[in-house]
Amino acid sequence: MALVPEVAKKLIGAGWEICLQAGAGTEAAFPDAAFADAGATVAPDAASAVSGAGLVVKVNPPSAQESAALPQGAAVLSFFGVAQSEDALRALAGRGATVFSFDLLPRISRAQSMDALSSQATVSGYRAGLAAADHLAKFFPMFMTAAGTVPPAKVLVMGVGVAGLQSIATARRLGAVVKAYDVRAAAKEEAESLGATFLDTGVSAEGIGGYARELTPEELDRQRAALAEEVGRSDVVITTAAVPGRKAPVLLTAAMVEGMAPGAVVVDMAADQGGNCELTKVGEVVEHEGVHVVGMANPPSGMPTHASFLFARNVANVLALMGPAGTLAPDWDDEIVAGMCVLRDGKPMAPAAVEVLGGGAARIGGGEP
Amino acid sequence: MALVPEVAKKLIGAGWEICLQAGAGTEAAFPDAAFADAGATVAPDAASAVSGAGLVVKVNPPSAQESAALPQGAAVLSFFGVAQSEDALRALAGRGATVFSFDLLPRISRAQSMDALSSQATVSGYRAGLAAADHLAKFFPMFMTAAGTVPPAKVLVMGVGVAGLQSIATARRLGAVVKAYDVRAAAKEEAESLGATFLDTGVSAEGIGGYARELTPEELDRQRAALAEEVGRSDVVITTAAVPGRKAPVLLTAAMVEGMAPGAVVVDMAADQGGNCELTKVGEVVEHEGVHVVGMANPPSGMPTHASFLFARNVANVLALMGPAGTLAPDWDDEIVAGMCVLRDGKPMAPAAVEVLGGGAARIGGGEP
Repeated sequence: MALVPEVAKKLIGAGWEICLQAGAGTEAAFPDAAFADAGATVAPDAASAVSGAGLVVKVNPPSAQESAALPQGAAVLSFFGVAQSEDALRALAGRGATVFSFDLLPRISRAQSMDALSSQATVSGYRAGLAAADHLAKFFPMFMTAAGTVPPAKVLVMGVGVAGLQSIATARRLGAVVKAYDVRAAAKEEAESLGATFLDTGVSAEGIGGYARELTPEELDRQRAALAEEVGRSDVVITTAAVPGRKAPVLLTAAMVEGMAPGAVVVDMAADQGGNCELTKVGEVVEHEGVHVVGMANPPSGMPTHASFLFARNVANVLALMGPAGTLAPDWDDEIVAGMCVLRDGKPMAPAAVEVLGGGAARIGGGEP
Repeated sequence: MALVPEVAKKLIGAGWEICLQAGAGTEAAFPDAAFADAGATVAPDAASAVSGAGLVVKVNPPSAQESAALPQGAAVLSFFGVAQSEDALRALAGRGATVFSFDLLPRISRAQSMDALSSQATVSGYRAGLAAADHLAKFFPMFMTAAGTVPPAKVLVMGVGVAGLQSIATARRLGAVVKAYDVRAAAKEEAESLGATFLDTGVSAEGIGGYARELTPEELDRQRAALAEEVGRSDVVITTAAVPGRKAPVLLTAAMVEGMAPGAVVVDMAADQGGNCELTKVGEVVEHEGVHVVGMANPPSGMPTHASFLFARNVANVLALMGPAGTLAPDWDDEIVAGMCVLRDGKPMAPAAVEVLGGGAARIGGGEP
């Protein structure tokens, strides 16, 4: 859910009018009445909710059908991966829409409070740590009981971005012994600060903007060989390696999973992007030679109250860049505004949008490219 | 699973012969081959596994049908609640069986290493803490992110026995703020030692042998009124109040659950005994006015590897009282042996067994009654 009553109330107080699709917050435990109490209007369906709207705020991109039904010239703020939403992009261009995507938020410190990728990755990482503990047939913590001592679980986290760090933190909270691996050597210090030991496989793939670059086939082979041994020693492997807008890299082959002991668990947070494990099926728990492979589908949706709360705060912070509250007059010289822009009045601004829609439109406004 | 390969190997080394029903350990991630490697025989089915056995070790009581198929004069070691297994008891008496039940283990310090109720409650309490975190639509830990701060979850644990203490420890590990409640005032210190705050409702029901006695209706009313307010403030309520061999007391009425916020969670560990919450359905997650009520069925079975490991250690420690390894010559003067005995050579020994089977048999041997 893209807004929560507490944030809606602040936005309304600042001068925005908010109209909500009935029932939109129910799954996240925010009843319509709470939004109404906050001063929002509740519309019976999506069509009447967007009718007359200047700005539509969603978590996921609108579908092509939803896009075609938007008011002429409306703006949209959501996650919006162009590659996955080409039809919607064309429909939005046809409506002369302006589209801002959280996927394109510049990774600068001023934008941190708007970083919905990070806030949702925080939720996902925590959920993955819990899922691992829930599926493992052993304790995470060491237990010394009168009947005997059980050792702590051995957890390997592959991919130490925001999500991986939260998985490390959650597994450590539960008492597991955690190893961490990332192709970016810079991840070592962060992983260690949370109590994990960092694996060195001799392959580094430090990328641009804090994300990992894709490895070459040779590098992947070396990485896999070094990792296979560690995977085989682990009770749990959590994989979090996603490259935005692309298919997730395969880090765990079937053979590596077969090297794990019966009862071991793989939690694949990149399942929605095709999975970091060859055996992953999105939204399912696959058993393979006694190992359970958990393909987490849309992990933040499993914890909707706080996922929505953080997303709504990100939204409110972006709205503060949109001009005086209640109007839509973005400062196009602001590198965050310009950077997030996919479409402006129906014209493609982001390179991926230009690729789909054609036309020679260039990025408008100042700031770094 | 009542035995694990590691413990089986030790028992075989000491002189026991062990025959395993094929596949019995598969769910707990102990393949038949691991038992075979430990020196055990693997029989294709239950009938051939028990054929010729002097002692049958199980987690749950044998069914009436299984009991009738045991060798004449065999012994059984398992959980064995007489009230739930009257038909099996009659069948076992008919076979002249000797039955030892973990439910009847004297609560003395020498018996701690044999205390399967405690070892399984440890697993259950940990599982309940995890289940609560998994079902709550919020974080357990406090999070301070760029998008805003989320407060820690408020968890109330009702019933501070072994299971309740593990639930407290698990919720605390995950960063929740935990309150604990028990009718036994003695539980206060233990709960506080794990970082929980203890609730005082002004009602105490300190019972015999460390268990709670049943409260009077008046006491229950006072307790409920004082608790209702705290329940309404909680994100999570975990209930663990079970009285061995009886229906679990109702601690949470539907009205109390209705006083909780949408998105709150109840985890009922006493679901198998009828539940501490009026709304509980065993093995199901019931949604009631936005609150999820998780009726945990056989909680240790969700973590079979370590649950089995601890149980097997309990079994091995009891077997040490059964005379020289490989023989069945219990020391009937040992209060643990005598205390655990339900049937001896088909004759009822425990009061509950006497009640079912009749006859004037008295408890044999020394030790405290």
